[in-house]
Amino acid sequence: MRARVIVLPRPEILDPQGRAVAHALSALHFGGVEDVRVGRIVDLTLQDGLERGAAELQVRKMAKDLLANPIVEDFTIQWLD
Amino acid sequence: MRARVIVLPRPEILDPQGRAVAHALSALHFGGVEDVRVGRIVDLTLQDGLERGAAELQVRKMAKDLLANPIVEDFTIQWLD
Repeated sequence: MRARVIVLPRPEILDPQGRAVAHALSALHFGGVEDVRVGRIVDLTLQDGLERGAAELQVRKMAKDLLANPIVEDFTIQWLD
Repeated sequence: MRARVIVLPRPEILDPQGRAVAHALSALHFGGVEDVRVGRIVDLTLQDGLERGAAELQVRKMAKDLLANPIVEDFTIQWLD
């Protein structure tokens, strides 16, 4: 069972990495880019046989405790299988 | 128009960040995690009116030239709208 945790800076938070990427794209003459936000993903392979609901709770707790900083970041969980 | 570029270490490449997260999860007593891979996402807001095919080509070129390192990373593009 594979879960993907997507971590992004909250919309109201400045994103210096995104700014830097936007700047670099502009320097490389890529036009038409209005905004860039940079986040990270954590793909977790969980052992088989876990019940989906229990796994969802566990992954949510991993995200809150370790993978995301809830003060400045939001996370979402997707299931890859 | 919003594109999401997902950048992940290629499967055959060691992922020290993923190892570190797996180790930290284990130290926090989260069990049942078999593998962890860490990547990044770049969400691009493009100006309206671009034709989807042209935008796809442009985003692919951005990913190859700047957002991913094709020697050690793979990327995929998703459209968020």
